[in-house]
This record gives sequence, C-alpha cells and structure tokens, in this order.
Amino acid sequence: MAYTLEHFSELINEAVSSIQYPSATPGLFAPVRYTLETGGKRIRPMLTLAVYEALSHRPASEAINQAIAIELFHNFTLLHDDVMDNADLRRGRPTVHKRWGSNTAILSGDAMLTLSSMYLSKCPSDKLADLNECFNSTAMLVYEGQQLDMEFEERMDVPVKEYMEMIRLKTSVLLAGACSLGAIMAGASTEVCAAFYAYGEALGLAFQMRDDWLDTFGDPVVFGKEIGGDIRNRKKTWLLINALNEAQDELPEILREDLEDEELISQVKAVYLRLKLDERCNAAAKAYSERAIAHLSGLNIDNGARVFFENLAREASTRTH
Amino acid sequence: MAYTLEHFSELINEAVSSIQYPSATPGLFAPVRYTLETGGKRIRPMLTLAVYEALSHRPASEAINQAIAIELFHNFTLLHDDVMDNADLRRGRPTVHKRWGSNTAILSGDAMLTLSSMYLSKCPSDKLADLNECFNSTAMLVYEGQQLDMEFEERMDVPVKEYMEMIRLKTSVLLAGACSLGAIMAGASTEVCAAFYAYGEALGLAFQMRDDWLDTFGDPVVFGKEIGGDIRNRKKTWLLINALNEAQDELPEILREDLEDEELISQVKAVYLRLKLDERCNAAAKAYSERAIAHLSGLNIDNGARVFFENLAREASTRTH
Repeated sequence: MAYTLEHFSELINEAVSSIQYPSATPGLFAPVRYTLETGGKRIRPMLTLAVYEALSHRPASEAINQAIAIELFHNFTLLHDDVMDNADLRRGRPTVHKRWGSNTAILSGDAMLTLSSMYLSKCPSDKLADLNECFNSTAMLVYEGQQLDMEFEERMDVPVKEYMEMIRLKTSVLLAGACSLGAIMAGASTEVCAAFYAYGEALGLAFQMRDDWLDTFGDPVVFGKEIGGDIRNRKKTWLLINALNEAQDELPEILREDLEDEELISQVKAVYLRLKLDERCNAAAKAYSERAIAHLSGLNIDNGARVFFENLAREASTRTH
Repeated sequence: MAYTLEHFSELINEAVSSIQYPSATPGLFAPVRYTLETGGKRIRPMLTLAVYEALSHRPASEAINQAIAIELFHNFTLLHDDVMDNADLRRGRPTVHKRWGSNTAILSGDAMLTLSSMYLSKCPSDKLADLNECFNSTAMLVYEGQQLDMEFEERMDVPVKEYMEMIRLKTSVLLAGACSLGAIMAGASTEVCAAFYAYGEALGLAFQMRDDWLDTFGDPVVFGKEIGGDIRNRKKTWLLINALNEAQDELPEILREDLEDEELISQVKAVYLRLKLDERCNAAAKAYSERAIAHLSGLNIDNGARVFFENLAREASTRTH
C-alpha cells in the first residue's frame, strides 16, 4: 500500500488521459478535455482512492472509476460556475465560456455531469445503488450551496453561521462525498462511511478557510497568484462576512467608494487586521483540521493510512499555496 | 389494463405534483416546478408507462419513477436549450431564464438532471445498472444532437442526411430511450428492448417532421400558435434544409434580404410549394409512422397495447396541433 500523493496523482492523471469521448462531435468534448487537463490539486479523487485503499486493503486503482466520477463532477461545477460568475480565467487559462462561448460551456458541462454518472456506474452491481444515492444527494447539496452563494452576493447582512452553511454545502460536502464513495466501494459499514464523511466535511472547511486567508494574506510569490483578488471583486469570503458583521459603519462605506484597487485592498486589509481576522481565520481553519483528525480517531485503519489522512488535514490549514 | 392517453396522463400529472423538493433553497426549485407544471404532451413518460404495461401485464404505475425521470430529463434539456437559444417563450409562458435570469436557469437545470437520476434509481436493484446505462447513453446522444444543431446554425450547406442524423439524436433517441426504460423495467429481452427503441426512434422522427410542417402549413386556429415562426427565425428545419439544397440560387438570396416578416414567410413558402416540399414532408412523416408500426409487428403484445402504439404513431404524422 502506497499512501503518497504522488502515487494517487499518477493513477488519476493516467485515468484522466484515458477517458474515451464519443468521436462524432469533437466540439462537445474538447472543452471537457481542456477543463480536466488544467489539473488542479485532484484532492477529491485522491480522497476516494485513499479511503478505498485504507478500508479494503486492496489496490486503490479498483476505485479509479468512482474517483474519476467525482473529479468530472467537480470540474463540471467549475465549468458552469465560471459561466455564472462570468469569470475570465481558471487555473491561469481562459475559461471554457471565454474560449468557446457560453452555449458550449453549458452543454459541455451537461455532458460532463452525465459522463461522471457513467464512470460512477462502472462498479460491482451490488455497490451501484449506494454509490448513486451518495453521489446524487451530494450533487444536490452542492447546487444548494451554489444557489445560496448567488443569493448572498445580493446581500450585505449574511450571518456568519449562514455563510458557513453555504461553504459547507458548496465546497465541503463534495470532499465528504468523495470519501464516502471510497468507503462504499470498500464495503464499509454505515458508521465508518459516516466517520469519513465527517472527516471530508471538516477537511473541506479547513481548506476553504485557508483559501480565503491565502488570497488576502498569502505570499504572492509562493501562492502563485496575485494577492487581494477576493477584496477587489468584493467576494463574500469568511473574512469579509465577519468584517461586515463587526465593522458595520466602516466597511460598507469603503466598499462603496470608488477606490483604486490597491487602495481598496489596503483599506479593507487594515480593517481585517484591526479585527484580528487574519489570526482568527487561521485559528478557525486549524480547528477544522483538528476536528477532521478527531473524526478518524475511533477507526481501525493502519498507521500509514492514518498518517496520510492526518497530514492532509494539517496541510489544508497550513499550506502556503 | 387501460391503454388510454388519459389514464397515463393522470398518473404522470399526479406524480409530477407529488415531487418532493428540498426545502432549504426554494429559489433553486421554483423554476423546476414552473417548468414541469407548464405541461406539454408528456409523450415520453407516457411511452415508458405504456411499454412497461404492455410487456409486464402489470400496472403502469410501477414504472412511474422512470417515467418521471425521463420527463425531468426532457424538461432539463428544454430549460438549458432556452438559455442557449435566448428564447423568450416556452409553451406560452416566459422561459425560466427570462423570468429568473440565466444563472438560475443553468443551476436549476443542473439540479433537474440530478433529480432525474434520483428518480431513475428508485427501482428494483437488479434493474438499476441497465436503466442507468440506457439513460446515460441516451442523454449523451441528446447532447450530441444539440451540439450538431448549434453547429448547423452557422452553416448554409447542411446535407439532408446529416440534418436527419441531428434530429434523430436531438429528438428521437429520447423517445426511443423512454420506450427502453419501460422495457427494461418489465424485464424484457434485448430483442424486445431493441424493437421498442426502434419504434420510439421512428415515432420521434415522424413527430418532428410533422412539427416542421405544422409550423409552416398548419391552420393557426387549430395549431394554437402563429404560423411561420420557423421561417421568420430562419430555423433550420427539414423544409429549409431541403429547399437550401434544391434552390441554391434563390433561397439564400431571399433569406439575406431585409424583408418584412409577412413578405419573407410568403416568399419562402412559395419556394417550398414550388418544390412540393409540403407534400414531401408529410409523406416522409407518414413513412416514419409506418416504419414505427412495422417495428412492433413481430412482438407478442396484446391487441389493446398494439392499437395504442399504432394510433400514437399515426397521430404523430397526422396531428393538427
């Protein structure tokens, strides 16, 4: 058993490049291939593989179709989200709708969702019903999260609790679902599935909180992208939501003003620092990492697996890029 | 056994109005409910129910979840197609993206596709793999049809054969898939599934050809909508594709001119009539109806069922609305 990111990455990249697309309409699948190739961290399929291997003591490759299903689903949501946000860039390249137009982005996204269901179904027949149920209910929660996110864009009074629920739905349940698919494939009990689901959920929250922190307080050289993009776009992050709740007089004023980007970022950052939101954000991320680790404490998994999952959880809230 | 459109309609409408939507994000599901409520002919779910009953000799209601799945899928494609076509009206009401915006239309459509997979999965566990396989491969063909349709919009030189293949993919395979789902639920053999698939495919082509004819040559009072909409929108129909191939000098000229709607419709219609495309369109539709009926000839189904499917096929190419 090889619990290394490299080992899982290799399996995933190999499978991604072997995906067979119908050949009659290359225009429909070119954007799918383009989206998958841009990579990303592949954290979701990695979770599926690692959980499967940890619980079944069999080669991770046996759950590769379910791992690919979750990666396809994730990339489908990015593709449609980018249309909705009218985003120009994704992972440093033009988004699909910028390159091929929004109609193609919508349709190729639809095809990607169906393709993910096709991959999910490549499994022993006694696993299919549970995989389907887990996959579909997870997908539905992700849509609900995206719906809340869109609704929050219009509001200046989002309570932190509601915001965390949105993040849980939009981001974390998919990591949780990725873990569950691996557990289902391994034939794990409901309790073990639930423990890994909870691990993935906490991991996702740690990951997202650190993401918010990095975008504002990261080192641009290590982070690999410009700092302050969230502030410039007035994106509702954990930092902004908290600041809006705690600096009600000051912050809406700054956001409304017609400041140059640099000045806007510097003023908002000053508010964050005054409220100690930088430290509090990191502390919250760290707490989620610890919670993730705690969910695994009662599980009977070997030490190599445990170290892998614990490192992943710690990395989520301490990473610099 | 009650092979009447009314009986099946009642089952479908009752099931549609009993669909349970998650309550946390009503904004996500209001467009789904709105789309389903506007009705339509419900021909696809009706096929699923009728085929199930004909082959199983059991109550059609046992296949209601699969019927709803296909109706949800069909309405999901309409929702996304309307965004892509920037259509204002659907069944006489504002389209979802006109009423709620295109972001909601995209996201609610996604939710509808996942919801259809959820309904499909409500079945005996030994049927799930085949249902999934049929549903997903049908869906993929529908996307390919839509992709070809979008590509054809940009072209003036589409051969009739390629056009028919596009129509087969975009429209007919879904009727074929609807039949197959009913056959799979009834535990039918591969041969019987294939016969009903072929029936649905030919039925869909008859239906679509008659649709093109009605839009140009129908009686506006009986048809219930304005005549000539396809010509006004320069929509690539069977009539226009054939006319473009046969009146290469004349027709592109007319379409390029800046004519008033009424004048444009009258001039294009004159070309159609000169080429006898009105008669030829109807003859082709009728031939597809007959082909549909022929596909059922070798099947061992009782007379009530046979009459139902034959009437449906004849109706497809002779209906006046």
